[in-house]
Amino acid sequence: MIPSNLQGAPLAARMSGIATFQVLKLLARAKELEAQGRSIIHMEIGEPDFPTPAPVTAAALEATRAGDVHYLPALGLPALRRAIAGYYRDQYGVEVSPERIIVTPGSSGALLLAMGVLLCPGDEVLLADPSYPANRHFIRFCEGVPVGIPSGPETGYQLTAAAIAANWTERTRAVMVATPANPTGTTIPGPELKRIVDEVQGRNAALVVDEIYHGLVYGERPPTALALTDRAFVINGFSKFFTMTGWRLGWIVVPEAYHDPAERLAQNLFLACSTVAQHAALAAFSPESMAICERQRAEFGARRDYLAKALVELGFRIPVIPEGAFYLYADCSALTDDSFAFALDMLENSGVAITPGADFGNHRAHQHVRFAYTTSMERLREGVERIAAHLRRRGTSGAAASARPAVASAPG
Amino acid sequence: MIPSNLQGAPLAARMSGIATFQVLKLLARAKELEAQGRSIIHMEIGEPDFPTPAPVTAAALEATRAGDVHYLPALGLPALRRAIAGYYRDQYGVEVSPERIIVTPGSSGALLLAMGVLLCPGDEVLLADPSYPANRHFIRFCEGVPVGIPSGPETGYQLTAAAIAANWTERTRAVMVATPANPTGTTIPGPELKRIVDEVQGRNAALVVDEIYHGLVYGERPPTALALTDRAFVINGFSKFFTMTGWRLGWIVVPEAYHDPAERLAQNLFLACSTVAQHAALAAFSPESMAICERQRAEFGARRDYLAKALVELGFRIPVIPEGAFYLYADCSALTDDSFAFALDMLENSGVAITPGADFGNHRAHQHVRFAYTTSMERLREGVERIAAHLRRRGTSGAAASARPAVASAPG
Repeated sequence: MIPSNLQGAPLAARMSGIATFQVLKLLARAKELEAQGRSIIHMEIGEPDFPTPAPVTAAALEATRAGDVHYLPALGLPALRRAIAGYYRDQYGVEVSPERIIVTPGSSGALLLAMGVLLCPGDEVLLADPSYPANRHFIRFCEGVPVGIPSGPETGYQLTAAAIAANWTERTRAVMVATPANPTGTTIPGPELKRIVDEVQGRNAALVVDEIYHGLVYGERPPTALALTDRAFVINGFSKFFTMTGWRLGWIVVPEAYHDPAERLAQNLFLACSTVAQHAALAAFSPESMAICERQRAEFGARRDYLAKALVELGFRIPVIPEGAFYLYADCSALTDDSFAFALDMLENSGVAITPGADFGNHRAHQHVRFAYTTSMERLREGVERIAAHLRRRGTSGAAASARPAVASAPG
Repeated sequence: MIPSNLQGAPLAARMSGIATFQVLKLLARAKELEAQGRSIIHMEIGEPDFPTPAPVTAAALEATRAGDVHYLPALGLPALRRAIAGYYRDQYGVEVSPERIIVTPGSSGALLLAMGVLLCPGDEVLLADPSYPANRHFIRFCEGVPVGIPSGPETGYQLTAAAIAANWTERTRAVMVATPANPTGTTIPGPELKRIVDEVQGRNAALVVDEIYHGLVYGERPPTALALTDRAFVINGFSKFFTMTGWRLGWIVVPEAYHDPAERLAQNLFLACSTVAQHAALAAFSPESMAICERQRAEFGARRDYLAKALVELGFRIPVIPEGAFYLYADCSALTDDSFAFALDMLENSGVAITPGADFGNHRAHQHVRFAYTTSMERLREGVERIAAHLRRRGTSGAAASARPAVASAPG
């Protein structure tokens, strides 16, 4: 739809497929309430509450003082690319050539590069519904067609090789998965990921694996896709595990055959990434930083354990307790059939901000909300108390309100 | 062309239209020579040699120490958007609503936003040939068709309203100009810019004006497009006048009707820009920073005066002495008909790196080279001496080598 008030050129057709995040409406209302003096507990934001690790800050200060804040190569600071390769060696026992690693402005830049080198107009990309909202918009931005496959608790809200095969068309060019995923926090078990690799690559299509939350798994970590194939596009970054959101730095590992096209795109779209951020990120892999990030991971794990249990007691269903990220994707069908109104009501009447399911797709989105445990345990506890009181006032709290069992089990 | 070694998915068709920068081949060779101990004078790089202004560095240190390096809003730090509006008020006497200003990851991000909200597949965009190479690649990235209009010294290497009218087709959706331009440094005089605004907007198309070099004009500054219309997309940033390249921060002023689509794109493509860079950039507008940047501008002006005269004496033709940026686009047809080989030969045999014309388009590109005066006057003088000696050895130096007069005149 072209707005009639566009004096001049019409709007690009792609814009009809690129939506704003619903949660921003709630965030804006939350800020209004805070401006009025209300206390708001933020469980809507996909951003760690922890600060930049101190060794990273120290490195940023040093790089800034040193003063040589000029352009770095488009592919990234060579030492940082080597350090990222070292991270795969140390953490996963996987050898990745630094040549295949491209530093990007956030993992957002990595997603743009991947879609940019892969998609022709009309090409279809399979992804789970629910998924991180920007994924379908990156696809649409590059004139591709996002095909959301309804994915429920029976598959851990993830695509499977079987679902991929069942939804394949002659226009399918790529498959995008995230492990752990946003909004569900679920991972893809190694054997299934291998089946997905084989299914997609057997069809000469591209597999894009978003591992931005891979550092945040609260048990045994599944393999990186890089351990299974050297032909996938694997995305990661410094925002989540390394709690460096505002520095805007990510990376992508590209298959060797795509190195040159990806480099051409990076040169033209980005020129380079932030110089100071890259020098700072070098310190993220130091033992001191890694120890800080590991402590934060343990804290996130404890928050997950607490919040998942508390929400189930309140009447939310969480059929798959997620292994990673910092999200709980909760089925609120026992409480509402309009998750947006439910979230807004909760914000207004209990001062707890959460994200309605509509941001993540269409599949039962109105019966789901996402809780981010990106605030302290103390605030989480207060949030749970507020939600409990709110639901009591609404007369919909507790297991009694739900006809269905709120079973929590690991994915298959 | 799809490389045959692409195991798996084919390459996006757009990639056949997205080239690497030719100059990078010279830069790589220059680095090889430097690694061998050779002294190289760099006149190929479009990056100020001046460091980040000290008040900006101080603000970056303060923001980093303060530690709240979390995401900022997608449109940018509100105080920075207000400061940019203040810059237009102070420098140009133009009122621009901060609402229309979007902070972007470099002016590269601004170009992506503009093309993203405007272009449908197959839409044509008119631009001067020669132009900044990434411009045509941003257009192609968004599935548009860049239409380079051969533009010579008679129009200051710039598009004119007449050239735009003459090249219009039913698929033309936008026109992109840059003032001052890369690689020529020339500006579009106010009256002609007004005619261009009327020509483009009269046809209900979009005008994109890249003013990234607008702070670097060495005489009377022409008007910003914002003084002539509130319906153009106007791009600027902190890399050139404010000498903050490595911080990767730019902005775009969008027409009001495009604000919402541009915000949706910024949310999805970028999430946010660097938090520290935005706090640092606030200090770029302080009187202390502005005084530093003005001194740098004067130094760039002196370099232009010296280098233009010296190159003409060496046999290059510079028919339009540019008013701005830090480039001289020199006609080397009296010296060579293969500017790439000429530049490579000059690098190998005199240790001076320059950029061959092919990066900037097709129009007489093999008879042009770009000199960037982004190094000290002392290094420029040495560069000129080396070039003179090199040309003497080749037997092609001096006005005697040129049958044509090397007239230097201001554009009309």
